[in-house]
Amino acid sequence: MEIEKRFSKMSKRMRSSIIRELLRDATNTSIISFGGGAPDPETFDREALSKLSQEVLTNEYQYALQYGATEGDPILKDEFIKILKERHGITGLEHDNLLITVGSQQALDLMGRIFLDEDSYVMVSHPIYLGAASAFRAYGPKFITIDLEEDGLNINQVESALKDLDKKGEISKLKFIYTVPNFHNPAGVTMSLEKRKALIELAHKYDVLILEDDPYGELRYEGERLPDIYYLAKGEGVMLLNTMSKIMSPGIRIGMIAGDKQVVAKAALAKQGADLCTPTFTQRLVARYLQQGTIFNKVNEAIEVYRKKKNLMLDALQKYVTVEGAKWTKPEGGLFIWVTLPEKYDTMKLFEEAKKVGVAYIPGAAFYVDDRTSSDLRLSFCLPPEDQIEEGIKRIAKLL
Amino acid sequence: MEIEKRFSKMSKRMRSSIIRELLRDATNTSIISFGGGAPDPETFDREALSKLSQEVLTNEYQYALQYGATEGDPILKDEFIKILKERHGITGLEHDNLLITVGSQQALDLMGRIFLDEDSYVMVSHPIYLGAASAFRAYGPKFITIDLEEDGLNINQVESALKDLDKKGEISKLKFIYTVPNFHNPAGVTMSLEKRKALIELAHKYDVLILEDDPYGELRYEGERLPDIYYLAKGEGVMLLNTMSKIMSPGIRIGMIAGDKQVVAKAALAKQGADLCTPTFTQRLVARYLQQGTIFNKVNEAIEVYRKKKNLMLDALQKYVTVEGAKWTKPEGGLFIWVTLPEKYDTMKLFEEAKKVGVAYIPGAAFYVDDRTSSDLRLSFCLPPEDQIEEGIKRIAKLL
Repeated sequence: MEIEKRFSKMSKRMRSSIIRELLRDATNTSIISFGGGAPDPETFDREALSKLSQEVLTNEYQYALQYGATEGDPILKDEFIKILKERHGITGLEHDNLLITVGSQQALDLMGRIFLDEDSYVMVSHPIYLGAASAFRAYGPKFITIDLEEDGLNINQVESALKDLDKKGEISKLKFIYTVPNFHNPAGVTMSLEKRKALIELAHKYDVLILEDDPYGELRYEGERLPDIYYLAKGEGVMLLNTMSKIMSPGIRIGMIAGDKQVVAKAALAKQGADLCTPTFTQRLVARYLQQGTIFNKVNEAIEVYRKKKNLMLDALQKYVTVEGAKWTKPEGGLFIWVTLPEKYDTMKLFEEAKKVGVAYIPGAAFYVDDRTSSDLRLSFCLPPEDQIEEGIKRIAKLL
Repeated sequence: MEIEKRFSKMSKRMRSSIIRELLRDATNTSIISFGGGAPDPETFDREALSKLSQEVLTNEYQYALQYGATEGDPILKDEFIKILKERHGITGLEHDNLLITVGSQQALDLMGRIFLDEDSYVMVSHPIYLGAASAFRAYGPKFITIDLEEDGLNINQVESALKDLDKKGEISKLKFIYTVPNFHNPAGVTMSLEKRKALIELAHKYDVLILEDDPYGELRYEGERLPDIYYLAKGEGVMLLNTMSKIMSPGIRIGMIAGDKQVVAKAALAKQGADLCTPTFTQRLVARYLQQGTIFNKVNEAIEVYRKKKNLMLDALQKYVTVEGAKWTKPEGGLFIWVTLPEKYDTMKLFEEAKKVGVAYIPGAAFYVDDRTSSDLRLSFCLPPEDQIEEGIKRIAKLL
C-alpha cells in the first residue's frame, strides 16, 4: 500500500522531521547539551509526589483511575484559581473560565484548532517558540512575524501590521497575537510594562485577541516581576496559557487555558474529540500537591540552582566568545540565552561541527517560520551540571 | 469582543454540546445510570498501582517526571509488543511500529489528523462509536455508513460502496474503513471470522486501509476468541488501535496505535504538535504494572463481575420489556447492550421521561452521523451495582 499520497493536507504542513532529529541530538546525554528546555530533574519534588500519589490512588481511586470531565478536575481548578489570584492578582475566575490541558502544548493546539483556518493570520514573534509554531502551522494560517527587541515585541511593527491588515479589510482574519512576555523562548527577553500596555491598547483598538503564554514567569532570578497582560487588560480580549512543566514537572503534562468562557467551552469541545480528558490521576495528584502549599518554596530552590547556572554560562560566554559582533541576551529569568553571531555564521551547519566536539545547542533556524538560514543559536543552561557549562561554552567558542 | 464569528471552520464542525449534556446526565450518580461506558472502579488494581507509583517516582523520577519522547516510553512499548504477541499472535512488531497515545481517543484523532481532508471519505458502521465520530467529523470528511448485523458489518454494503467509489474514480479518497470488530460500542455485536476475512479481501482488492479499534476484545464472557483483523491480514493495510481503559483504568489515559512504520511516524509528528508527549509518569507506571504479569488475572476478576451484570440485565430485559417488536443484542463480551424498539418510539424524547423516573441510557441518535431520530438505545451494564440493574430496567419498561 502506498501510504504517502494518502496523507492529509494537514499532515503535509507538519514540519519535516529534520528539526526533530536535531532535537534528539540536542538531548543526547552523552554530550554536553545546551539543547532541550528540560528542567533539572533534581528540582522535582519527588518525595512529596511519591507520597501523594500513593494517597490519591488509595483514597481517591474512584476519581483518579476513572474517566473525568473533559474540562478538568474541579479541585485542580480551585488550586489554579487560587494561584492566579495570589500570585498574579487575577480575580473573578470561575471553573468555566478554565480548561485543564495535557501540557501547554495541547493548549496551543486547541487554540489553533478552534480559531485557525487556512485563510487566517496569526501574529507571532520572530523567533517564535518552536512548539507554538508547530501547533499553529498544522492548521495552515499565514504567519505575520514581528521582530523581538530587548524589551519584547517591536510595537511599531505590530501597529503597522495591524493597520495594514485593517486597510486590506482582512483584520478579522487575524485570529490572535501570540506572545511569551516573560523570559521568551528562545530569545530570553521580557516585554516591558510599557509595551504590554501598548500591545493591549492596539489589540483593543483593532479588536484582536491576545494569546499570552507564560510558562517561565515564576522563574525570575533578578529584577522585578511584571504584571501579566491578562491582568493589565482585566481579562478583556486575552487568553492566558500556563503550565506546571517548568515549576513542577514536565512529565506530569498539566497545562491550562484561562479566560473567556465561550472560548474555554469551545476548546473543551475540541479537546473532547482530541483525547476525551486529561489523565485524572495526574490532575488529582497535582491538585493535592498544590494544596500542600509548598510548591513555591520548591520553586525558590530551583531558582537558586538556575540563577547560578545562568551566571556561569554568561561568565563563560564573556570569557571565551571573543568573536567580534557576537552578542547574547542576559535573561532575568527562564531557561534560555539567545546568542547572535555575525551573519557569516550558519548555526545549522555549525551544529554538525559542535556535535563532533561533544556539545549541542539548538540552531536559530529552528525558531523561524520562514526557511531562512540563521546565525543565532539557543543555549539552555538548566539541564547540564555546573561543571559542564564552562567546558561546553569553551568548545563552542573554539569552533567559532 | 464578538468571539463566535472568529471560530474556525473546524470548530464549527464539532458536534453541538447537546450530546455532551446528555452524557453528563447519563453519568449523573444520583440516578440509575446505564449511560457512560465507565468501568466499575472496584475492578481497578489500586493497591498494585499505588505501590508501583511510589516506586516509579522514587527510583525513576528522572524519567517519570521529565519530558519524554513523543513516540512513547520504550519500556511500555516492550510490554505492548509482548502482549500483542502472547495474546493476539501478532509477531514482528518493533518500537517504530508503535505510538503511545493519551487513550485511544487520541489515536482516533491522530488518524483523522494525518489522513482526512474535507474531500475525503471514511467508511464506518452505523451506529458508530461516538468518540470516533467526533474525532473524524472535526476534519470534515464524508461518512459512508454501513449497517451492522448480528455478525458485524454488512459486507455486501461494504462491497457495493467500494465498487461505487471505484467507478466514480474516488476510491483513493476513501482514507480508511473504521471498525470495532469485538463487542461493538454501541451495538454489542462481534464480527464473524468469515466477515473479517471478507473485509480484508475487499480492502486489499480496493487498496483501502482498515482501522481496527479493539478496546473490548479482552472482555469476553462467552464463546471463543476470534483473531484480530490485523493478525489475519498479517498487518498488511491494517492499523490496530488499543487502550488500557477497559482492562486497567480509563483515567490513566494510555492507548496505542500499532502498524505500518510510515503511518506511525506521521502520527508521531502530528502528536508532537498536539501535546508533545503522553505523560511519562503514567506511561512508566503502566509499563511497570504490565511487567508484573498480573493484569489478566485482574481482568478475569472483572470479567466475572461484568458477566454477572450482563446476565442480570438480559434477564431483566426478558422479564420486563414486553413491547412487541422490541429486541436487543446478546453480547458475548464488552460493556453494552443495544436495544431496538419499534419505530414509533423516539428514544431521545423518551430520555427526558427516563430521567424523571431516575434512570438514564444513551439514546441511539447519539451514535448516528446523520440527524435521524432513532428508536434504539444503548444500555451499559458495567457501572451500576447489581441490585440497581433490575430496578432500572423495570423503570424503563414501565415507560414503554
